[in-house]
Amino acid sequence: MCKNCDYTIHGHHHHGWDHSIPPAETVAPGSRLHFQCLDSSGGQFTKDSTSADVPSLDFGKINPVTGPVYVDGAEPGDVLTIQIEAFHPSGFGWTANIPGFGLLADQFKDPHLKVWDYNPDTLDPALFSDIAKVPLKPFAGTIGLAPAEPGLHSVVPPRRMGGNLDIRDLAAGTTLYLPVEVAGALFSIGDTHAAQGDGEVCGTAIESPMDVEVTLDLVKQEKLAFPRFTTPGPVTRHLDAKGYEVTTGIGPDMMSGAKDAVSAMVDLLCKDHGFSAEDAYLLCSVAGDLRISEIVDMPNWVVSFYFPRIVLG
Amino acid sequence: MCKNCDYTIHGHHHHGWDHSIPPAETVAPGSRLHFQCLDSSGGQFTKDSTSADVPSLDFGKINPVTGPVYVDGAEPGDVLTIQIEAFHPSGFGWTANIPGFGLLADQFKDPHLKVWDYNPDTLDPALFSDIAKVPLKPFAGTIGLAPAEPGLHSVVPPRRMGGNLDIRDLAAGTTLYLPVEVAGALFSIGDTHAAQGDGEVCGTAIESPMDVEVTLDLVKQEKLAFPRFTTPGPVTRHLDAKGYEVTTGIGPDMMSGAKDAVSAMVDLLCKDHGFSAEDAYLLCSVAGDLRISEIVDMPNWVVSFYFPRIVLG
Repeated sequence: MCKNCDYTIHGHHHHGWDHSIPPAETVAPGSRLHFQCLDSSGGQFTKDSTSADVPSLDFGKINPVTGPVYVDGAEPGDVLTIQIEAFHPSGFGWTANIPGFGLLADQFKDPHLKVWDYNPDTLDPALFSDIAKVPLKPFAGTIGLAPAEPGLHSVVPPRRMGGNLDIRDLAAGTTLYLPVEVAGALFSIGDTHAAQGDGEVCGTAIESPMDVEVTLDLVKQEKLAFPRFTTPGPVTRHLDAKGYEVTTGIGPDMMSGAKDAVSAMVDLLCKDHGFSAEDAYLLCSVAGDLRISEIVDMPNWVVSFYFPRIVLG
Repeated sequence: MCKNCDYTIHGHHHHGWDHSIPPAETVAPGSRLHFQCLDSSGGQFTKDSTSADVPSLDFGKINPVTGPVYVDGAEPGDVLTIQIEAFHPSGFGWTANIPGFGLLADQFKDPHLKVWDYNPDTLDPALFSDIAKVPLKPFAGTIGLAPAEPGLHSVVPPRRMGGNLDIRDLAAGTTLYLPVEVAGALFSIGDTHAAQGDGEVCGTAIESPMDVEVTLDLVKQEKLAFPRFTTPGPVTRHLDAKGYEVTTGIGPDMMSGAKDAVSAMVDLLCKDHGFSAEDAYLLCSVAGDLRISEIVDMPNWVVSFYFPRIVLG
């Protein structure tokens, strides 16, 4: 538990964003808070779950976030700063292909579930079958503020106030800046991940319940169109030591390019390392990165998918 | 000069891809070659050029590539492997905003040219005004094979046989795999860059003439839809030591997201470091990286632009 936290928020989970949800707590700017976060299934998957449990997943209960926290003095037009202090991982995680969801949903129509058992103290790379080891870097997939627009808004899409950003580098030490749209900002956090690649291509990361500590502060009347963040140091050194296998997709549509690049990597991992296509797809999601190599050589853009060779030993 | 090269290719420059261009040389698989490459202006810009010279750039002479080289035994359906051995940089470079070209062409309508003078032996980070220093990593922006389709094809867009890929990590030590479409493969290379970020957002990198050494080899009858490559080690350690400033763009269109993210970084660099907007845009192109943070949280995708803090001292 956090020794220096001013508040602990637990049990206050909500589904979706709605500025009429009553605050779980009201805090002064500069407060440090400890949040107990559920995994994105809201506890529906456990260490005993299998692929057979995927079809019965209740989408009404996915991606609960903990909060909201009302920050005193926050007003529309301000920026909330979130200093991401620390994670307390649980050691349990899961990754799934959920039919209809994910970049290659057209190719992967069957439910598939991988349950992870990692060491929450050492955070040693997590085993995937006998072939791969995935370096871990905990972060919160969903960090956001309530929107000004009334009503309940789905938690799935991220928005300018943040939400389900799924940005791999929002790890400990990072400072995130979010635009405030309502009085008190109404901050919530959840969807904690033990590891994920840029893109989260199969639609899920190593989804893992864990506690998070953050410090919330305010910048008054600062213009900010979309979230931004600052990382204090390198972001991929846990992955890059042995270089990368890289596939590309080239053409006028970046979505097609991304699909081509990831499909090619799935093929390569199956061919060279004996993975099943489903396992390769999940592995791409938790460890591989989508990058835009060029976006100016009209009319064809290059999307590249970087898979770290260290995962393969 | 290369002591172990089997061939030196110089003076054989062509504009665009056409499989009827006669080979500059015919080589056996496994040959190591030394190419003398021009910059992408084909020598139109020099160390004395200024922004006033940009409008008179002759687009008919841009992006000359050196070659083609006929590889004995290469046939359609094979894969050509290009082991990128070494670069011999010149020390001269330029970066330009060319009106009508680049990710933010709508915002940046005036010609702008930055001339670089870097140390080709030490490759120390290159000075940009008094504020920034850009770490260098030479690579060839254009590496490709002739297409099967007859006729002359513009050099600007990359294709499945490669070409103007502008992939920042095609640096020394990397192995590139390209699908062969014509007998002999007809390999050419050029458009050498001293540094570039993922995206090449303003449309140009640190464009710089330099010599390149590669070893060409064949894999017979190997299926390959698009280029792929393998890097032997880390790709961003010259950039990442001090972390990153990151801006985002969020929405259902990744092109808009990329524009929003880069626009926000230009604003941030101007506000926090006193750059002109034009200089900030060029600096983003040579040092910042476009990444797809998530591509699955329907209907909004997150494109992030990573600017390495080490550039700012």
